[in-house]
Amino acid sequence: MGLSTVLTAMFGIEYPVVLAPMGDVAGGTLAAAVSNGGGLGVIGAGRGDLAWLERECERARAGTDKPWGIGFLAWAIDAEVIDAALAQSPAAIMLSFGDPAPFIETIRAAGVPVIVQVTNLPEARRALDAGADVVAAQGSEAGGHHGGGRATLPFVPAVVDIAGSVPVLAAGGIADGRGLAAALVLGAAGAVIGTRFEATPEALIEPAAVDAILAAGAEDTTSGRALDVIRDSPWPEQYPARTLRNKVTDQWQGREAGIDDAARAEFRAAVGRGDPDYVPIWAGEALDMVTEHVSAATLVGRIAREAEQAIAAAGRAHG
Amino acid sequence: MGLSTVLTAMFGIEYPVVLAPMGDVAGGTLAAAVSNGGGLGVIGAGRGDLAWLERECERARAGTDKPWGIGFLAWAIDAEVIDAALAQSPAAIMLSFGDPAPFIETIRAAGVPVIVQVTNLPEARRALDAGADVVAAQGSEAGGHHGGGRATLPFVPAVVDIAGSVPVLAAGGIADGRGLAAALVLGAAGAVIGTRFEATPEALIEPAAVDAILAAGAEDTTSGRALDVIRDSPWPEQYPARTLRNKVTDQWQGREAGIDDAARAEFRAAVGRGDPDYVPIWAGEALDMVTEHVSAATLVGRIAREAEQAIAAAGRAHG
Ligand SMILES: Cc1cc2nc3c(=O)[nH]c(=O)nc-3n(C[C@H](O)[C@H](O)[C@H](O)COP(=O)(O)O)c2cc1C
Ligand SMILES: Cc1cc2nc3c(=O)[nH]c(=O)nc-3n(C[C@H](O)[C@H](O)[C@H](O)COP(=O)(O)O)c2cc1C
Repeated sequence: MGLSTVLTAMFGIEYPVVLAPMGDVAGGTLAAAVSNGGGLGVIGAGRGDLAWLERECERARAGTDKPWGIGFLAWAIDAEVIDAALAQSPAAIMLSFGDPAPFIETIRAAGVPVIVQVTNLPEARRALDAGADVVAAQGSEAGGHHGGGRATLPFVPAVVDIAGSVPVLAAGGIADGRGLAAALVLGAAGAVIGTRFEATPEALIEPAAVDAILAAGAEDTTSGRALDVIRDSPWPEQYPARTLRNKVTDQWQGREAGIDDAARAEFRAAVGRGDPDYVPIWAGEALDMVTEHVSAATLVGRIAREAEQAIAAAGRAHG
Repeated sequence: MGLSTVLTAMFGIEYPVVLAPMGDVAGGTLAAAVSNGGGLGVIGAGRGDLAWLERECERARAGTDKPWGIGFLAWAIDAEVIDAALAQSPAAIMLSFGDPAPFIETIRAAGVPVIVQVTNLPEARRALDAGADVVAAQGSEAGGHHGGGRATLPFVPAVVDIAGSVPVLAAGGIADGRGLAAALVLGAAGAVIGTRFEATPEALIEPAAVDAILAAGAEDTTSGRALDVIRDSPWPEQYPARTLRNKVTDQWQGREAGIDDAARAEFRAAVGRGDPDYVPIWAGEALDMVTEHVSAATLVGRIAREAEQAIAAAGRAHG
């Protein structure tokens, strides 16, 4: 059994489930677990710290013989980072947030497919024009950074309608088989899943953050720039982030201009001592469906089975 | 053929498609057309103007022998309005935005099922506690007013998970069969569709607004309170509205506190002469899929057929 799509054929994987390249959270162990489970694990190499990248690729290789990929923030990297990534022989490179065009030719010339994550239709068109092999359409219900202006359900078919033969993935708000099934009937070739995989033993994440994620629901999240501004992060302004609400977001979300040196110092000190009222936890609206700490490999198969069941049940409704 | 669900059985309809009770736009002619097409037409009686209600119910009866319903804004009506609606023998009454509890007992005592539209989990729990027969889970990608905090794809399964045996509908961002199919695999018993039905000859809407809707995409919409504040509308603050962007939203969205008497006077004058830069047009992120002016009855059947195809295609992916 399985759920074959253009994506599963492209990467020789069993299920159309792609691990989101969650920066610092999706290391080689989690990527390997997702790939072992039948999906495509993707290491979240973020801004391209080369020592981190090398270590996590080592772990992925140690953990699986199946294909896995590496993801970067396009706004934060340069050609050198791409060269280092290609030297690791990933099955895919994923680029999100920012212009992927400067990197696509090099990656494709190395025979590695490029997945570009996009947050609106102009970005989707740019990715297609630049030669993306796969486009992931991300809605603002996603955990972590997003474009702020689109929701997954109507965004995915809109990208499918302009993508021609390029496969589209759905990202944002998917945590179980119902969400994967929705992605597929919307015309996607699979789903990119982040938040759900934070609550696994393979994720690089503090136990306290996992507990908070398991306890929280979608309505405990908030979206904005307060946490990026207070930690002096160079994230481009057009990408707010969805996180759990905490003391910082309660005070500063939407009032980012008021964040001064005193607030920054207080934040740094509190995070330094691990104060849970300050430590950022990126997570999305899929949280209502994240209630169990469970191994990533088990999850992939479970999500796929549930998706098949959801599609079969809807199919039986044909009277 | 068809797509049978708990909803189609409950109302004796062919397809699990419910016309959104779009205030002033979904009159009796549109409701009748949707019901004739095999869905459930719902008249958008908004704040409960009784003369309007009576005329549009007359038109619905003249247009169809099939069941149709009436929808109201819960925050804006009183018991008298419900009595007037029940006197029209609707197949359902739909209540959105605000507390439905004061009205549910009367409606159910008359043997009429109540559909409650909700925008977050506390509202969903309140509707279930109050005895709603059907709960519609609305995401913020919807056209018109919404709760501001939830997206349809992750919200629907979260409501399904607390609804027990009460059927759930998906509302927001659905304009074609792919969207309806997504609703069904997410566990919903059907979809509430608004924006898509604005671009039909049966809708009560100006031709210029239809042209604007056909030309616009999701990224031409904006969400906020500027238009309600400038027209002195008593909508509760927790419900922003999604509309096409225009001069008013460009100037005032997010800066509503600055709207003064001069701005209100300018707005009233411009709307009075039908200036398209000022006239509000409520529409949602489904707009990318709204490209054709087509009869509502035709649309319902087309959406259902496309949904069956989308589900069948995803089902064939079982390898
Ligand atoms: C903890 C966390 C960190 C993330 N970091 C990144 C990142 O570094 N690069 C990236 O492209 N996307 C990142 N994302 C976004 C994901 O790529 C993806 O769009 C998102 O997780 C999908 O929505 P979901 O969280 O509802 O599954 C992150 C998401 C989370 C939850
Ligand atoms: C023009 C328009 C007017 C609306 N008026 C109402 C209303 O009076 N009462 C109500 O319950 N919902 C109203 N809605 C919201 C719908 O009930 C529904 O949630 C929404 O249309 C679903 O999303 P969609 O527009 O993407 O299909 C309106 C929507 C539109 C587009």
